[in-house]
Amino acid sequence: MQNHGLLKELIQSLCCLPGVGSKSAQRMAFHLLQRNRDGGRHLSTILGQAMLEIGYCQSCRTLSESLLCEICSNEQRDSDTLCIVESPADVWLIEHATTFKGKYFVLHGRLSPLDGIGPDQLGIDLLEQRMANNPPKELILATNSTVESQATTHFIGEVAAKYQIRTTRIAHGIPMGGELEFIDSSTLSHAFKDRREF
Amino acid sequence: MQNHGLLKELIQSLCCLPGVGSKSAQRMAFHLLQRNRDGGRHLSTILGQAMLEIGYCQSCRTLSESLLCEICSNEQRDSDTLCIVESPADVWLIEHATTFKGKYFVLHGRLSPLDGIGPDQLGIDLLEQRMANNPPKELILATNSTVESQATTHFIGEVAAKYQIRTTRIAHGIPMGGELEFIDSSTLSHAFKDRREF
Repeated sequence: MQNHGLLKELIQSLCCLPGVGSKSAQRMAFHLLQRNRDGGRHLSTILGQAMLEIGYCQSCRTLSESLLCEICSNEQRDSDTLCIVESPADVWLIEHATTFKGKYFVLHGRLSPLDGIGPDQLGIDLLEQRMANNPPKELILATNSTVESQATTHFIGEVAAKYQIRTTRIAHGIPMGGELEFIDSSTLSHAFKDRREF
Repeated sequence: MQNHGLLKELIQSLCCLPGVGSKSAQRMAFHLLQRNRDGGRHLSTILGQAMLEIGYCQSCRTLSESLLCEICSNEQRDSDTLCIVESPADVWLIEHATTFKGKYFVLHGRLSPLDGIGPDQLGIDLLEQRMANNPPKELILATNSTVESQATTHFIGEVAAKYQIRTTRIAHGIPMGGELEFIDSSTLSHAFKDRREF
């Protein structure tokens, strides 16, 4: 096949989606063309619009269509609780999984000096400004549980301590539905240390 | 989260892709927005264009941007060999896996009276017209190996017989790299029956 022009280009473009290789991209392209042209057209429109219009919230740095995101501009949300996360996806997850009604601050990564990611890249200056001008009563650290994330958490904890802000960290332990047999020893030891009254 | 507007809509639209659930759609949306906006924009453009411009070849019924597809309009391809497949995806697969230089005819399905799919829906009239006016020397049946496909194959074989056209079927047997231990008995028995001189 010399070139199937547009079809080939469509398959190649679909490969830019994470987790999509050439085989899945083929399946997607043929599916849309043969069974769901409306869906394909709609996806094309929304995708173009999203890439163009979605930017970052000036206050919490999450993805947003407007200067202030829905959460920051919502007066019903509690400004006294500030939840620190690593990515906009984490905001989405927490919003869908919990009843948290406070506000967020998105780091967009974690401290990683070797990759040139320091406090400036994570917006710690903006966060510190917030702590100085409008200090929350509680700072919840909802970062990942890797070594680099823990260093980041520690760093933010120290900044918060400077402003005497109460800082908490989400619990580490056995995942719900998890069996002890399949849990790594570090998590198990952590879960033992953090045991609570029953 | 009341509504994340465009972001939510993007995630929902991505779910129209086959094999993509809400979790993968989230990952795709965040990936494109945070790491690959150019890719997202390009995908949006190509997708819109493909949904609009790709139709079906008038001669072989495969997906094509023009009235005659690249293969049908290519004079270097051998009109004496006609390969019957069930879907445009099969044309793509055969083009990429084999050195076949003949032409194709796409059925877009298989006979399935219960679903109202008869010879008309499969374009058998068009195929018969081709056999009458410009008969190929060989008709290769490259359909799937399900019961319904075999009924379809049989039907087409009878039409071809009417025009005394030599008809072949692609081989059934052990897949390359397959181990006998894991092959179903029907395939194994077929492979035995169809054994060839070594």
